[in-house]
Amino acid sequence: MKKHNFSAGPCILPHSVLKQASDAVLNFNNDNLSLIEISHRSKPFVAVMEKARALVLELLSLENKGYSVLFLQGGASLEFLMIPYNLLKINGKADYLDTGTWSSKAIKEVKNLGNVTVIATSRDKDFTYIPKDYTINPDSDYFHCTSNNTIRGTQMKSFPKTNIPLVCDMSSDIFSRELDFSQFDIIYAGAQKNMGPAGTTLVIIKDEILGKTGRSIPSMLDYQVHIDKDSMFNTPAVFAVYVSMLTLQWLKDLGGIKAIEKINTAKAILLYSEIDSNPLFEGTVVKEDRSHMNVTFRLTGESKKEKFEQLLQENGINGLSGHRSVGGYRASMYNALPLESVQVLVNIMKQL
Amino acid sequence: MKKHNFSAGPCILPHSVLKQASDAVLNFNNDNLSLIEISHRSKPFVAVMEKARALVLELLSLENKGYSVLFLQGGASLEFLMIPYNLLKINGKADYLDTGTWSSKAIKEVKNLGNVTVIATSRDKDFTYIPKDYTINPDSDYFHCTSNNTIRGTQMKSFPKTNIPLVCDMSSDIFSRELDFSQFDIIYAGAQKNMGPAGTTLVIIKDEILGKTGRSIPSMLDYQVHIDKDSMFNTPAVFAVYVSMLTLQWLKDLGGIKAIEKINTAKAILLYSEIDSNPLFEGTVVKEDRSHMNVTFRLTGESKKEKFEQLLQENGINGLSGHRSVGGYRASMYNALPLESVQVLVNIMKQL
Repeated sequence: MKKHNFSAGPCILPHSVLKQASDAVLNFNNDNLSLIEISHRSKPFVAVMEKARALVLELLSLENKGYSVLFLQGGASLEFLMIPYNLLKINGKADYLDTGTWSSKAIKEVKNLGNVTVIATSRDKDFTYIPKDYTINPDSDYFHCTSNNTIRGTQMKSFPKTNIPLVCDMSSDIFSRELDFSQFDIIYAGAQKNMGPAGTTLVIIKDEILGKTGRSIPSMLDYQVHIDKDSMFNTPAVFAVYVSMLTLQWLKDLGGIKAIEKINTAKAILLYSEIDSNPLFEGTVVKEDRSHMNVTFRLTGESKKEKFEQLLQENGINGLSGHRSVGGYRASMYNALPLESVQVLVNIMKQL
Repeated sequence: MKKHNFSAGPCILPHSVLKQASDAVLNFNNDNLSLIEISHRSKPFVAVMEKARALVLELLSLENKGYSVLFLQGGASLEFLMIPYNLLKINGKADYLDTGTWSSKAIKEVKNLGNVTVIATSRDKDFTYIPKDYTINPDSDYFHCTSNNTIRGTQMKSFPKTNIPLVCDMSSDIFSRELDFSQFDIIYAGAQKNMGPAGTTLVIIKDEILGKTGRSIPSMLDYQVHIDKDSMFNTPAVFAVYVSMLTLQWLKDLGGIKAIEKINTAKAILLYSEIDSNPLFEGTVVKEDRSHMNVTFRLTGESKKEKFEQLLQENGINGLSGHRSVGGYRASMYNALPLESVQVLVNIMKQL
């Protein structure tokens, strides 16, 4: 049976990408060697890395604007530590916006190195909205926010203007919508939503903000070390970088972020309209902050629960359970999820 | 043309493993979903992780001996930092054996956190031998060594007896030979030699040695955090862990380490015998410390260089160049390299 994959991540990737990745595991580049058994310093793989970096800058319209692109390991979770290591001055401080689990985890790691100020939080209402009234300290070393909250289903629709470096964890919505990406000084994202398999982390850095902390940084946590070595300070996650490159190429061929945003908006309108018009369902976050990537909702009563879940299963809907910390349902609609899959889900909701 | 893959890493993997990995990228577990688009917390992937862990303990005869197995990210290079973070007491010191590039890199990272003593080094002779006469400080927090040196081609044949924790970087020879693995307190290894694709790092830890430093450890660098979360504190490198599990199963089916050691010894005898008997070639390290994984050698003169390299190419020999920092030749003969490939190389050397 065809599956409709609403998994929150690792998540759906384009079928054409999976086909190419599968082929490359057996025979890459027609060289009779597998992608995963050649040197990361071989010409064919260096070309993959260079193409992946170039596609990132092109898709985000960041070419020739002083940004470096890295493919690292350790996920966003290691970035939570690398950000303060690279930006927090000794005796300095950082401002964080707390919009849920991932922000909270990021805040925790700053405390290993220095002072962090949570300048606003939506914890008072279970992170069901994005705080908007706050003032960033002009003498803080940087401001950090999380653009999209996979667990709760909220998404920042705009970003504060500030003169201090703006750092954003875009793990779950990068490449999904048009933004002025040049407003950010560091963007980072685990690959496993809109970009590729788990195992590599994209980091985009405005070069000029580095080297200002006076701090000694361990090699593997030092962005400058990775920039100087073109993400090859140590062996990169070859397969994850390759599949990310393929997915970025797929997105470019589709028409880039402008084109995918139209599709993502259509998917979001389709599902949120059903949630709002169907008395059996309700959304769980405030409307203006609703995520276009992760749609969180629940049944208004328990009577149809069994029937609903049976229909999901019968129709090949995968990954619709809410996060284990929240419950309810969560439809993750990343770039590669076709509108058709959302239509199948909406049809089930209608016939319930 | 069939390739004979002597690449130093990432390197050859068993063909049956590549076939299964390729299939799983399209359809894993007959679920009509790709391995790389399902949740790492789904039952099928949790089963992969558990099986990989169990196979490691079984193959190394470490079951029920108080060890935990982790699959992390960041390669051995991140372990260079994690080891002192987890074992070096505040104001403590660590003893390191310096046998080449990788040891030297490990030593460098300790200095971020405290004091390191290089108790012996073979730097005086370009790391072409393993130092043997040294005394480990009984009051150091741990002793660290590198079992096999991919770049220079040396290998430790025995390990010192000591009462302090014994830590070993086995990135390039783990699972290749029988050892009493219970003599070690921490073994770590990047996957991309004998175990799988680049992107995951195996760490095996004797539980009782943790929690003794008095040091506050960032979450992602804290072994106890990863142990408590079964290597799922954050999203693991799903594909790399899966392929590692397949390779470990392949090794078990072959008869385990005892069986592969016989094959590895036969490959080493075949190639070293040719190097020693053929006046056109010479080995580059002292005989008693020769690695069975990475055989380093050079031509005794330049006159046959062009012909040799032409024959290598004509016969599908891949990855025989020495490391860029050393030159000459290096035949990496990891577990998955068949004896037949070594025979092809030796035949070329004979006919030169």
